[in-house]
Order: sequence, then C-alpha cells, then structure tokens
Amino acid sequence: MATAPRSSPSFPPLSQPEEAFPCVRGVTEWLCRDLDPEDGVAQSMPDASPTKWHLAHTTWFFETFLLETFDRAFAPFHPDFRFLFNSYYNAVGARHARPERGLLTRPTWPEVLAYRAHVDERVATVMARLDGDERERARSILELGLHHEQQHQELVLTDLKHLFAQNVLGPAYRSPLAAGPAKAESLRWIGMPEGLRRIGHAGPGFAFDNESPSHRRFLGAFALSDRLVTNGEYLDFVEAGGYRTASLWFDVGWQRVCEDGWELPLYWRRTPGGLEEFTLAGWRELALGEPVSHVSYFEAQAFATFAGARLPTEAEWEVAARTVPVAGNFIDSGRAHPQAAGPEQELRQLFGDVWEWTQSDYAPYPGYRSAEGALGEYNGKFMCDQRVLRGGSCASSSSHLRATYRNFFYPADRWQFSGIRLAKDLS
Amino acid sequence: MATAPRSSPSFPPLSQPEEAFPCVRGVTEWLCRDLDPEDGVAQSMPDASPTKWHLAHTTWFFETFLLETFDRAFAPFHPDFRFLFNSYYNAVGARHARPERGLLTRPTWPEVLAYRAHVDERVATVMARLDGDERERARSILELGLHHEQQHQELVLTDLKHLFAQNVLGPAYRSPLAAGPAKAESLRWIGMPEGLRRIGHAGPGFAFDNESPSHRRFLGAFALSDRLVTNGEYLDFVEAGGYRTASLWFDVGWQRVCEDGWELPLYWRRTPGGLEEFTLAGWRELALGEPVSHVSYFEAQAFATFAGARLPTEAEWEVAARTVPVAGNFIDSGRAHPQAAGPEQELRQLFGDVWEWTQSDYAPYPGYRSAEGALGEYNGKFMCDQRVLRGGSCASSSSHLRATYRNFFYPADRWQFSGIRLAKDLS
Amino acid sequence: MATAPRSSPSFPPLSQPEEAFPCVRGVTEWLCRDLDPEDGVAQSMPDASPTKWHLAHTTWFFETFLLETFDRAFAPFHPDFRFLFNSYYNAVGARHARPERGLLTRPTWPEVLAYRAHVDERVATVMARLDGDERERARSILELGLHHEQQHQELVLTDLKHLFAQNVLGPAYRSPLAAGPAKAESLRWIGMPEGLRRIGHAGPGFAFDNESPSHRRFLGAFALSDRLVTNGEYLDFVEAGGYRTASLWFDVGWQRVCEDGWELPLYWRRTPGGLEEFTLAGWRELALGEPVSHVSYFEAQAFATFAGARLPTEAEWEVAARTVPVAGNFIDSGRAHPQAAGPEQELRQLFGDVWEWTQSDYAPYPGYRSAEGALGEYNGKFMCDQRVLRGGSCASSSSHLRATYRNFFYPADRWQFSGIRLAKDLS
Amino acid sequence: MATAPRSSPSFPPLSQPEEAFPCVRGVTEWLCRDLDPEDGVAQSMPDASPTKWHLAHTTWFFETFLLETFDRAFAPFHPDFRFLFNSYYNAVGARHARPERGLLTRPTWPEVLAYRAHVDERVATVMARLDGDERERARSILELGLHHEQQHQELVLTDLKHLFAQNVLGPAYRSPLAAGPAKAESLRWIGMPEGLRRIGHAGPGFAFDNESPSHRRFLGAFALSDRLVTNGEYLDFVEAGGYRTASLWFDVGWQRVCEDGWELPLYWRRTPGGLEEFTLAGWRELALGEPVSHVSYFEAQAFATFAGARLPTEAEWEVAARTVPVAGNFIDSGRAHPQAAGPEQELRQLFGDVWEWTQSDYAPYPGYRSAEGALGEYNGKFMCDQRVLRGGSCASSSSHLRATYRNFFYPADRWQFSGIRLAKDLS
Repeated sequence: MATAPRSSPSFPPLSQPEEAFPCVRGVTEWLCRDLDPEDGVAQSMPDASPTKWHLAHTTWFFETFLLETFDRAFAPFHPDFRFLFNSYYNAVGARHARPERGLLTRPTWPEVLAYRAHVDERVATVMARLDGDERERARSILELGLHHEQQHQELVLTDLKHLFAQNVLGPAYRSPLAAGPAKAESLRWIGMPEGLRRIGHAGPGFAFDNESPSHRRFLGAFALSDRLVTNGEYLDFVEAGGYRTASLWFDVGWQRVCEDGWELPLYWRRTPGGLEEFTLAGWRELALGEPVSHVSYFEAQAFATFAGARLPTEAEWEVAARTVPVAGNFIDSGRAHPQAAGPEQELRQLFGDVWEWTQSDYAPYPGYRSAEGALGEYNGKFMCDQRVLRGGSCASSSSHLRATYRNFFYPADRWQFSGIRLAKDLS
Repeated sequence: MATAPRSSPSFPPLSQPEEAFPCVRGVTEWLCRDLDPEDGVAQSMPDASPTKWHLAHTTWFFETFLLETFDRAFAPFHPDFRFLFNSYYNAVGARHARPERGLLTRPTWPEVLAYRAHVDERVATVMARLDGDERERARSILELGLHHEQQHQELVLTDLKHLFAQNVLGPAYRSPLAAGPAKAESLRWIGMPEGLRRIGHAGPGFAFDNESPSHRRFLGAFALSDRLVTNGEYLDFVEAGGYRTASLWFDVGWQRVCEDGWELPLYWRRTPGGLEEFTLAGWRELALGEPVSHVSYFEAQAFATFAGARLPTEAEWEVAARTVPVAGNFIDSGRAHPQAAGPEQELRQLFGDVWEWTQSDYAPYPGYRSAEGALGEYNGKFMCDQRVLRGGSCASSSSHLRATYRNFFYPADRWQFSGIRLAKDLS
Repeated sequence: MATAPRSSPSFPPLSQPEEAFPCVRGVTEWLCRDLDPEDGVAQSMPDASPTKWHLAHTTWFFETFLLETFDRAFAPFHPDFRFLFNSYYNAVGARHARPERGLLTRPTWPEVLAYRAHVDERVATVMARLDGDERERARSILELGLHHEQQHQELVLTDLKHLFAQNVLGPAYRSPLAAGPAKAESLRWIGMPEGLRRIGHAGPGFAFDNESPSHRRFLGAFALSDRLVTNGEYLDFVEAGGYRTASLWFDVGWQRVCEDGWELPLYWRRTPGGLEEFTLAGWRELALGEPVSHVSYFEAQAFATFAGARLPTEAEWEVAARTVPVAGNFIDSGRAHPQAAGPEQELRQLFGDVWEWTQSDYAPYPGYRSAEGALGEYNGKFMCDQRVLRGGSCASSSSHLRATYRNFFYPADRWQFSGIRLAKDLS
Repeated sequence: MATAPRSSPSFPPLSQPEEAFPCVRGVTEWLCRDLDPEDGVAQSMPDASPTKWHLAHTTWFFETFLLETFDRAFAPFHPDFRFLFNSYYNAVGARHARPERGLLTRPTWPEVLAYRAHVDERVATVMARLDGDERERARSILELGLHHEQQHQELVLTDLKHLFAQNVLGPAYRSPLAAGPAKAESLRWIGMPEGLRRIGHAGPGFAFDNESPSHRRFLGAFALSDRLVTNGEYLDFVEAGGYRTASLWFDVGWQRVCEDGWELPLYWRRTPGGLEEFTLAGWRELALGEPVSHVSYFEAQAFATFAGARLPTEAEWEVAARTVPVAGNFIDSGRAHPQAAGPEQELRQLFGDVWEWTQSDYAPYPGYRSAEGALGEYNGKFMCDQRVLRGGSCASSSSHLRATYRNFFYPADRWQFSGIRLAKDLS
C-alpha cells in the first residue's frame, strides 16, 4: 500500500444486502490494490491462506450457496473451482488439501478476478429477478455471504502480515506508521454488580447462529480493566522472566513455550537497537503505549496470572460491551494496526484494535441448533478446543461487529490481532 | 488375577488418614497381586504408565510432600528417585521423560516394594510424633496423598488394560467374566426444573481444590437419561454409519476419525464370530446390555447428536447427582468392568461403571485459587483443552467419589472407562 | 509454452565461457518465457525450488564466487540476497530455510530479472578487464558457473513439472505432444568383455571434481540392454503385481512402497479411459513405446529383479558410453519429454531421454580431492546415501554432458526424468 | 553380571552344528544369567530389541526354518509366536510391529525359556533322525541358525547397553572394569602395494551369502593405520571443534549433528570431574588409550577428514585382514569392552574390539544371488543405504568371524561397538 487507505466510506448497511454487495466485494479488492499478484500465491503456514485463495473462496461461497440454488441458468464458472476453493464444507464434497493452497499458481490472479466479476454479475442478475419467499431466502444467504466476505477481508490482512514477516526483506503492505506513544495512562478497573444476565443474540438484526439463543447466565460481581494491556505492560512480564516461569502457565501452554521456544509475542524481535515489532507497515520500534497484540491465549492467561488478575469470561465481556457503542479503531480507518487508548470514555477499546481473549471455551449456547445442510458447518462443528475472542480488531470492518459477536481460535494461535483485557472478581 | 478380588473391606474413612493409610496403600499392592513383575515394566503409550511406576510415584508423593517437610530425620530413600518418579511437578525439579517410563527396568519390582515399605514405615512414625498445627497440616497432606493414591489405583487398571490389549496373546488381568445381558430396559428421561443452582464443594469434608469455590449457576430446565448408553445402542450408531458421517462430528473429532481410522470404540473388534470387547478378563463377546465404555468425548458427542440429544453439562450432572447416594459398581466389587443398569432407582449408574463425559470445558470455578507451592500444580495447570467427566467408574474406589468430583481428560482420550449419559433441554 | 521451443542454436562451446555466458544465461530466461510470474513463486516440496529462486540462485552463484573475488568495485546488488539465494554453502554463511523458498513473494520476478541483468553486466565488464593468471582463474569459475546454470535449467523444468502435477487444473508448460508409439522393438543385449578399465575424467576439457581422478577398475564381462526400458515393459511389472511383491524390493524401498502407497510411477494415473501420464504438455495417454520415466532407484531395482536382470554399475555404463557420441533427445530439441528409441545405432539412448539409475553408490573416486573453500561444497559433501545416474535427460543440455558425467539423487527420488537401463553378467 | 564371565570355552566348531548347537544356545542364556527378568522387557529404541525378544526370536528361527521343514511331528509351540517373533521375513507372514517389542510383557521370561527348551529338544531329536540329503540340508540350516544366534548374542549386549544408558541409575551389566591406559603408542602406517586382488568368500567353510561370489578388484597402493583410533585421538577432534565444523562432514551427517545436537560419541558425557564413558560395567572415567567406540559412520568419516586421512574400503580391509589371524578381544574374554592395542603384531586390532566402519556401500558382489524363499531375505534386501563394517567387536564371538565377514549398519547408527581405522592412498 503505497498510500494510506481512504477513510471509511458510508456503506449501505449489510441488512440491505443487494445494495451492500458491490461495496463489500469492492472492499476486498481494494485491500489488495497495491499487492503484486506474486504476493497472492504463497501460504506461510497451514492456518493461513494465500490472498488469491481468499479472493476465490469468498466468490465460491456465493456461487455455491446462492447461485447453485437460485440461478436457473446456473453453470459453474469452472468445473474444478468447486474442488479448489471449498474451504471445509464436507457436505459440498472433496476439496484441495488445506496446507497446499500455496501450490495454486493457477488460476492466475487475473483469472480469479474474472471469476469474481462473473459471479458478481450473476448475483446481481439473479437477485433482481427473485421475489417472494425465494427472494427472502436468497437475501438471507446473500447477507451471510457478506459477513463471510468481511471475515476473509480480515484474514487477507493477517495472513499477509504472517507471510511478509517470514521474509528477511520485511515487505510492507502499507505506508509507514507514525511512532506510537511510549506510555499509557494507568489502568483502572470498571466494576459490574452480580446478577442474572441475558447474553446472546435476540431480535431482528443479523447474527451468526453461534450467537443464539439468547439465554440467562448468573454472573458474580466483577471488574474489567478500562483499556487493553499495553506493550509496555507486557514487556514487564517478559523482562520479569514470564516466559521462563512454569507456574504462570497452563501445562499445555508451557509445553508450547518449551517446544517452540517462545520468548516474545509473535511479531516482536530484539535488535541491537532495542525491541521492534513487525507491522503491516514493516518493522518498527515497539510502541510501549500501544496495545499488545499477536499473543496466544496461553500468553494472555500467563500474563493475567502474573498481573494478579484473570481473563474475562465471554459473558462478562458481553455484559460490559452492551454499555458502549460499536466504535473504535477498525480497518475502516486504514491504519491496520492497534493504537493507544484515547480518553473518550470510561470503558475503552472494547471494539476494534485487537480481539480480546476470553477464558471461555467456544461452546454451543444452551439450545443451540446449527443450520441445515452445508451451511450448518459454518460454525457449529468448531465448538471444541477453541477459545472465544470478542470485540474485533484493527483489521475488522465496523459494520461486521456487535456486542454478541463470537470469534474463536485455538489457544496457541498468534497470527490474529489478538490481545488482552484483564478481569477480576469483586467480592 | 486368578481369582476374583475379594469384596470391598470396611475401610476406615479417608478423613481418618492415619488409620486409612495402611489400608489404601495395601489396596494398591493387592491390585497387583497376580501380576508378574515383568508386567509392571512396560508403557504402552505416553499417556499410560507402567504399574511399577505407579507404585513408586505414589510413594514419591508421600516422601516428597509429607516426609520432606515433617520428618526431622529425613533422608531420601534413593537420591535419584526424586528425578525418576516425579510426574509433572515443575516446582520439584527436573524429571524422567514421561514417554520413557517404560525403559525403567531398574529399580526392580522388589526394590520398589522396599521403597514403599520404607516410606510407609516413616509415614507412620512421623505421624505418630506430630501434634498441634503441624499435625493438622500433615494430616491434610496425608489425606490428599490417599486420594492421589486412589487415582493411581484406577490408572493401574486402565493402563494395564491398554497394555494387555496391545498383545496378540490377550492376557487377562482377572478371571473370566460371566456373559453380560443382551439388552437393557428402554431409556427414560428424568426431568429437572430450571433455576439458580449452587454447585461445587462447600463444607468440612475433603475435596480437591478444583471443586471449589461453591457458586451459583443458572440452569434451564433439562432432562437426563435414567441410565448409561449401552453397547447395543452404540452399535446402532456404528451400524448406521456413525463413523462415516462427518456431520455428526466436531471438526477436530472428524480429523481424528479420518487420521486414526476409528471405526469402533477402543476395545471392540470384529471377528468372524461377531463383535468382541477386550476386558480385564481378556477378549469376550460384546454384551449389548452393558454400558458402552472406552469412547472419547468426540464419540460421545457424535453419538448424542445421532440420538437427537446432547451431553449433559457438569452443572446439570452435579445437580442430579446430589439427589442419589454414592453407590454403584466400583472396584470394591472386584468386577473391574461396567455392568448393566439394575432396577434399584430412578436415576441409575450416576456413580461407578463408567466416567460420564460432560460437554463442559475443564475450567476454574469463579474465584478458584490453586494451592501454594508444588501442590498447586495438582489440578489448576490442566485447566485448558480438557473436558470434565463425572461419576467414577468400575475402576474407582467408592470412598474416592462424591457429587462434586471433577475428573478431566482430553477429548480424544479413550483408554479410561469413559461412557455416555444423554441430556436434553426441556422447554 | 504456447509454441514448441526453437531447435537448438549453435552455441559457443562452454570452454569459451565469455562467449557462452550470455547464451547460457539467455537460455534460462527463454525456458521461462511463457510462464506467468505467479508460476515462479511456489515450491511444491522441499526438494524442488520455485523458478524465481532458480533464476536468482544461479545469479547469486556468479555474484558470490566470481564478482566478489574479481570485481574491484564489488558491491552486493542487495544485502539480503546473499542470505536468500545461498543454496547450501555453509562456508558462505547462513541462508533462507530450504523448505520455505515458496514464501518469497519478494523479490518479485521483475526484481529478479533486474538482479540477473545487473550481474550479467558486471560479469561482462569484469571479464573484459582481467588478464594473466587472474583471468584464468576467473574463466575457470565462469565455466563452472555455466555448467551450474545448466543444471538449474534442468531443475526449472522438473520442478515446474512437479508443481503443475499437484494442481487439479493440470497446467501445461508447453504445447501438446503428439501421441507416442505403442510399442518398441524387442530389447537386445550388447556385450562387453572383462578387463581392467579406466574410468573417470582425464585431460583438458571441463569436468566436475567428482569425475576425477581417472582410475582403473576391474570389470567382469557384462551386457547392457540396447535401449531404455519402456512404459509398456514397466506396465507389465505393474500388472504382474510388482508393487505388491515384497521379495522384489530392497527393505527400505518396500517400506516406502507401503508407507507412501506407491502403485505407479510418479506421474502415471489410472482413469476410466486408461492410463495417463503427466507431461510438461499436461496429461496425456500413456505412450507404451516411450521410455519409462520418473521412477525411483527402488522401482528401477525392483523392475530389474522382476526382469531377471540388474542395473548397471556406473563403471559399466561409462565404459559403454565411451563407444558412442554424446547425442540424443535433449532440451535443445524443445521436446522436454523422453521419446522412443530410434534405429540409428546399436547401443541407443545412452545420452538424453532419461537419466539412468546405476547400482553405484555416489562415492569419491580413489584419490578424490574436493576444491578448497566454499566451492568445495559443490559435490563432495553429498557423497553419502545417494545413487549415481548417468547420461542426461530430455531436460538436459547437450553441451552439458559427457561419458564421465555423474549425476546423483536419493534412492526414493522420483521427480527427475529418471529411468531404467538393464544389465547382466556374462559368464 | 556379578562376576566377570569365564574365559572362552573350547567349543565344538560351528561346522559341526549338532555338537555346537547346545553350546551356542547355552552361551545366549549364559549372557543373561545375571539379568533380572524385568531387564528383558524394555526396548529403548526401535533399532534395539528386548533381551527376551532376542531369546525368543533366535528360537523362532530354528522352529520356522528347521523344524517346520524337517520335523514330521511338527506342531508350533504356541500359535501366536510365529507372529510375535518374526523379525522381518515377509515370506513368513505378518508380524508384531518392531517398535512395539517392548510391550510384550507376555510371554514371560520363564515361558520363553520353556520355548527355548522345547525347540532345543526337538532340534536334537530331529537332527538325530535325519540322514542323506535331507540331513545335509538340515545341517546347513542348523549351522546358519548358529551364526544367526551369535549375531543376536552381540545384539543382546549392545541393546542392553543402550537400555541401561537411558536410566539415570546407570545399571551395570558386569562387574567393574579396571581403569584403562591414558595413552597409546603413536599410530603407524602399514602399506600395501597396488594390484588386482581377489576378495569375498570361496571354499568349503561357512559364510553368509553376502560374502560371495569371490571376485577380483583392482586396488591402488594404500596404507592402513596399524591400530584403531583411540579415545584420546578422538577427543582432540572434539576439542578442536570437530562437531562445529561443517566442512568436515557429509551433508547428511551435518544435518544429523545439527538436528540431534551431537557433541560427543554416543556414550560419552562431560561431568564436573571430567569425561566419562558408559560401559557395560556402568559409568567410568574415559580411558584415553582405548579405542573410540559408538561412533557413527558420519563421525568416523569426519574424524578421518580431520586427521588428513580417509576410511578404508572394505576390499582394502579384507586384503589386509587376510594377512593376520582371527584373534583379538572378543566376548569370549568376558570383557565386553574394547581395550588398548597390545604390542603383539604389526597390524593390530583388525579383529575384535570394535567394528570398523569402511567407506564401502553395502552392495551385492558381482554375480550375487540371494537364497530362495524366506531365507533369501536374510541379507540381500538390506543392500541399500547401509555401510559395511568389518572385523567384529568385543561383543562378537571369535568363532563367528573371518576376513570376508561383512557387517552393515546405517550411517547414523551409533549403538553398536563401532570405531575407526584410518587409511590413505600411497602414490
């Protein structure tokens, strides 16, 4: 990105999916506008995917779940794309092995753009033709597809960041970032009383199936830190020997520390001139006042223990988040990097900047039912071994988030913009 | 075991640890009485340990946590045993690599028995000498050590079963079991109303730290099956293609099915004469009316989905278990195998027979604090990536269990006596 | 390759390296002329490298071994390229991990071409300036670099073939091949008498250090097959259960067959319409009269045993090869695929078509000395665990080969154009 | 071994196999006489086997290859033993997985001894009954079986040594060794002229098939060191940074050094008090004047390069060994450890002490034919990827060896008594 991305446009809401469709699709391509097609080929680890694959897979989603059902003249753009760009839907059939997505030099970037253009045109044509119940069902899938595309927009950024970090050349995705602040205000605690609380999604707006049903939880009195944990606070943990102190860690986390030689967050490095952090703008001096990012659940939990606190549960987080607007540092600003907490409110940075690890297992809500058919594989089958993260990041779209939104990753994952908010019991 | 083990003796309660100590220690050796010392050497997988190692490690526990602190004339029985028989206590120091416990042909079985006798003698001597606060602290560790020893008694059986199952000779640990029933009564549902419930341990009796603090949970109305799922019911799942139907499984479970080629529970096999099950009495025709055992959490969850139900949460299980006495098919009976549900009560088999997988993540209760020092590693550091199991098994001691007891294993683990109780929402 | 490559130009001999330099360098780029830059990024396995990496590494070779020594105004083109494009020279320093060459989306293809142009210009300038001893030393390294570049030209083709074969789209590097013959003439044996023979390189022309010293070997009387083993003959082995018959295989080969599920040569596949072979022109019906290719040493040896014969030793092969001219089906013809034996001579296909596995361990000749310094790592350190192949392939340049030339790969390697010539004892 | 083993008895020669049979069989059990049966269970790595397995497998050999063919009343001792104790004979059928031999706690040691006694009795009975051609064929297999048993006697010792070395208790197999000499005489070179030499076995005595046919090789003039390389000389290599100098190593060897962290021979360790070596008598101060042992081919070759020499070829070794008697430090002396060279002859230690790595690939001799049927798997199928060692060790029986004897191991193997003799070219 030679120049900083433009500020967030005023998009049609995703609840008007026909209108939002070209805008959301356009954002995906706009995120790639300064990439070289070669950058879109490589896969830096099995968890990450090539940019080109993201461009094609999001298109496959509309082709498979919308056009195949609703386009009377449906013909696949290419017979092999069903196989190549299926991510994990067993019900759709066999698929290209995930760890080998980086071998797909073909289709080329222009061919993938042609695939996108073809599907975009068919979607517009088909949606214009539908009415009645059929139209409602199609709109619902279209809206889901837009939220899906926004999830992949975030992955485009995190996967590119991981890829570029492997390269000794340290390529930059965007123009240089200004230096960050060296210090943050003191951390304060915001208390919440005990009580029976309702969490989860209810009502007319869009939400993923994993946010439902809305249900009651009993929460003891608790407090959350008013802002995210900073690089400077995390550095104290590092320098105090946090990565060498077994008693701070879960057993599985400690194994990971030992086996993988963890000593710092994923994108930190020590240089003769001091600590640096890899950003989407390349390597840069570590800004101690900015939120720590790219830490695993293991690191977040060990830090919290070190700090004499704990991580919040997702219910605690949600109860708190319902009190603030969905506003913050999102990809809409083009920064693509967390920033220091501002003074604007009491409970800050709940949305944007970094995803916040909770101590909650990613599990079905009581009474949860996944959708029928292949789309039922969207969320439900991942409800084992993962942890919930909340709030979105600097790589998320503001229109994508809400207080009930549940993200989930494995406890050792570090390549997302994932950080730490602290919690503690009051009583 | 040439003959069936004697029926359960009337033990002193573990809350009188000085009196119970020789009895609990004696049971461990009694469980090994028909083994050849060679049987005590081998380790069939990293999760399992050699019998001899269990004999020594439980002794090390008393030596390390009790004698080192309270024996004024303390001298280690052997300087290397601190290294050899430490299981996982980082605070105690370095230790023999877990997957290589099967290489310890030395110390020999008689040497380990001598180690046991030495520590037993010292414990008795030391306990007789203590008084006041010191005595109370020592009694508390002694009681913990007895519960610890009982946990390893169960592992002696499950680890031997796993070892013997690897051997084409199919050695038997105990004398033949009578044929089991071919059918169970129809499964019925026992309902419980919604409400704010208190779970966890409170009060004077012994409990592990992970059972505390007692706290409130809001539970919707639910029902539990009145008995355990049987081999016959599980066979229906198998024959209906359960192991070939991705949509029934968690994603990580399905990967395991595919990679490890799971087609049956761990100890089932197909023979020309029909299905057989490996038991501590050797291979035997599968008894369709007995509870299914040695299934992983993945299999338990897939079966529940297949059955149109779900697994209980640990809170649901505990609320139900508080209504019944701690009675059932334990190791005290010497059977060492699950048995069919009897007619004795409405909600049956909650205790004994097989550990029951719950859908609950093994996590700290709100306000949980682990103990100080090395003993703080007993439970807390494992609170990630595991699932809670409840109720004990045919290899547990009756004196070891209670409604608040939390066991935990990884979702793919199958070598414990682990089975299935179903739950469903009422509303 | 939209069109078949031009026929071989009349190049200056490599013994005039200044004149040959632009030609050999040009051939490398010409081989890539129809590739999309995206094709140059991916690495399909650790043994293979991306095309772009080959383009850069061959340039690094001249920069490191020639310009660094002889260019008085030497400055590296880019300070990180020494790290990125070092293949395996420990003496040159640390290097980018081999299995991660596919992550180098940067430098881009145009940047690598600029690197090539820069080094080409400096080489020409420097060579024009040198004289005396210095010039002779430089010429010797320049000539070595040209042979090195030719080796990588062959790897460009075999690595692309491997990459394209992983893609369900089956991309073609070149235009379609005409159908091959369905049958070959009967195989005949060409005998050679026993005697003390001299093998290895002696004399003024270029040879790699591993071809020296020339020395004597005693050979019993033997015979070689007059042509290469064909696909049809190899198919007989397949259909007779060759891949299911342990007694035909070395123990390590049989392990590989079982573990990797080998059932056919690397690029064969069974389709409803019959056997097909992946070629640089895409998938194509298997031509039974053409030489079998892409078999490992294990397969070559198992086939030879099946055929009641054996593989030649490298000494036998060399003695035979000295009797025929270095002529055959090389990359010069642009075919890039083996072809059926022609009628032109008694002992056919010794050069070109496919590399011929010998039973000889790749070992130093008696009195072998590797070069001093980093260039000493070129050949000598690989003299363990590999097998010698002789004769070149359809992807080799004719100017690159000679009777004493020793190629070497691991016994399980299959991605080179490697095939089979049979031998037997006479006596 | 509480006491040193008795000196070598005067055995019947193995060419009188009926007479030698009870003696050779007895030696195997005598080697185990001070072991605890528990010591016989464990397998310290896939390459090694439990002692009990060796006791049973050597018995299986006679049962399978002799009794099954020649015993008219043949019935297997136990139907599962054919599966359990088959080592690697595909033609005999399926077998227990090699890396899981350590799980066989059953059959127990006494049961295996009963198996041995049963087969011993049947062999004696059957051999007494046979005559004519049948007797000759049986004698030939019996003699082969005795040589096979001697090979496993050596493995009993090397596998126990490896097992005991894993145990922090450092168990001793035999009584303490006297301290060894700190220095050896200067190494001298013994030259041999160039010429056409005959190597391999010819004549009436026993030899394995891999020693045939006898054939001619042309050898240039060469010299061998008069004695083995000592610990002291090897220590010079270590202290000069041999394990940190890539240029001394083969590429595959260097990978091994880096990946496995090799810094010393297998059984050396640094202690505050100096270097120690694990022996069958336990840990002991390193005797600098004794031969270095338990080095891999990679280490042997790196040392030779460091010393400005090379390893001998097997032909060179054999030509030299034909000039000296088969005498030396064998297991017959009961020492079970290499010893310093004595003054007795010019070319010393060719037999016994340690196996000597040659640079020769383990390959078939020209005209080699393996035996028909399962016994054809004895040697031939291993003729890939291994290196020849010559001369026997302190764990070999003197009656087992001869100048043409070829042993073979993988280049990274270190658990045998394997050491170094140097060679160089003369010319």
